[in-house]
Amino acid sequence: MQREEQRARTFSWQVRVYYEDTDFGGVVYYANYLRFFERARTEWLRAMGADHQRLAAEQGLVFVVRRAEINFVRAARLDDLLEITVEPAEKRLASMVLRQRAPRGSELMAGALIQVACVRRDDYRPVAIPPEFLERIQA
Amino acid sequence: MQREEQRARTFSWQVRVYYEDTDFGGVVYYANYLRFFERARTEWLRAMGADHQRLAAEQGLVFVVRRAEINFVRAARLDDLLEITVEPAEKRLASMVLRQRAPRGSELMAGALIQVACVRRDDYRPVAIPPEFLERIQA
Amino acid sequence: MQREEQRARTFSWQVRVYYEDTDFGGVVYYANYLRFFERARTEWLRAMGADHQRLAAEQGLVFVVRRAEINFVRAARLDDLLEITVEPAEKRLASMVLRQRAPRGSELMAGALIQVACVRRDDYRPVAIPPEFLERIQA
Amino acid sequence: MQREEQRARTFSWQVRVYYEDTDFGGVVYYANYLRFFERARTEWLRAMGADHQRLAAEQGLVFVVRRAEINFVRAARLDDLLEITVEPAEKRLASMVLRQRAPRGSELMAGALIQVACVRRDDYRPVAIPPEFLERIQA
Repeated sequence: MQREEQRARTFSWQVRVYYEDTDFGGVVYYANYLRFFERARTEWLRAMGADHQRLAAEQGLVFVVRRAEINFVRAARLDDLLEITVEPAEKRLASMVLRQRAPRGSELMAGALIQVACVRRDDYRPVAIPPEFLERIQA
Repeated sequence: MQREEQRARTFSWQVRVYYEDTDFGGVVYYANYLRFFERARTEWLRAMGADHQRLAAEQGLVFVVRRAEINFVRAARLDDLLEITVEPAEKRLASMVLRQRAPRGSELMAGALIQVACVRRDDYRPVAIPPEFLERIQA
Repeated sequence: MQREEQRARTFSWQVRVYYEDTDFGGVVYYANYLRFFERARTEWLRAMGADHQRLAAEQGLVFVVRRAEINFVRAARLDDLLEITVEPAEKRLASMVLRQRAPRGSELMAGALIQVACVRRDDYRPVAIPPEFLERIQA
Repeated sequence: MQREEQRARTFSWQVRVYYEDTDFGGVVYYANYLRFFERARTEWLRAMGADHQRLAAEQGLVFVVRRAEINFVRAARLDDLLEITVEPAEKRLASMVLRQRAPRGSELMAGALIQVACVRRDDYRPVAIPPEFLERIQA
């Protein structure tokens, strides 16, 4: 794959580090990268015309995280501006794997593979990702 | 009112300060006292035979916080053990005011007045606090 | 005071409601408004040329919240976009009171008075707010 | 290894699910399992005579999470009581891998492998885990 294509498929969303995100060590509390990653996924969904509230209300669907593998590489600090990325790495009928990164400039703070499944809101049963959404994801 | 009575009405619940609760300043992130206060209220409700899940499922009721006044007096630190208290200060038909404190030993870290209302889960309309619950509260 | 002046002094910052901000009731967990309010205060400070990291590193100062009075009026929902405002309401030597609001369009979700003090990072002793900063605040 | 030995090495810590832990889906917000896992690790450290505050103050050491692999299996609900476990899976000079589980009764909600490293508080350089601590860990 060429670099231009890769860039085209990679969505990114800026996140600022606030007091609430830091801990006793003076750096971002590591569990909060999962929050940053999710904000970027939500905005990526929104950019494709899907938002959580509407998916839940109109189709009774929610996306849930099934598995996460995260490497915490460097420690981001208060006031840092991170560029959280989302890139589809694998897609199946009822789930997908997303590669996500949290760089600060050219330095990687954290990277992750996040497996997200589509389930019915009522009983958490897996269902197929809506086709109009699935076909917009290039993986 | 005599001191013995006061102690009898005051419920307390221990909360340990973990990494997740601290911030860049090395102390408890102030907004987290609201979480500590709520844990104590939840356990106070449970001690009176009411739990959130059951109130929601069986009676369609949830308690919501309408107003909070909080003084942040001293800064609790990682590993501290706080004794969060709940004491009814005022009761009305559909709401109540609770006095809450977060001492560490004999030193007060934070104190608050929290107004809690009882609402219908569906439309957030105020409803009377269930009488079997209200009569157990001495305010 | 005329409305134009008021608008000029009021800083505002957009906050999107994400999954992490909601609770069991399907709405924003009330304690999270304190986080939203703080993000707006941080950006307001930054807009005046002060950021937390630099204040701490260069001058050994941190701002801490001493008191908060918050009214929770309506419940914001997932995907909502809130316009968090900051408006100085009172200024003293070592502290200030800020009026903050969280409207969604024309409806108020929550409003607060937040008292913030300037302290030394080392021992949490109150110190005068740096004059170059204080004189930029119109209260 | 026999089952008795395994049980002996497995530390466990109860965590109650509060409002603050839930999200829009009515269940525990998945990122919060990382918090639950950390509370149990902190208590496991404390049970071995080490606490974060003292390690930082006396030896200038902090434990940081380097990598986490988490499977989110079932969704815990408000008021649930989870039994968070910690079991050493691998130990090296400056890091260790811990297996952690979050069951509710006999059902697994989430399971994880967490790699924790020991670093100097000042510059985040890896250092050997203190021997008096390392020898108490059976992995």
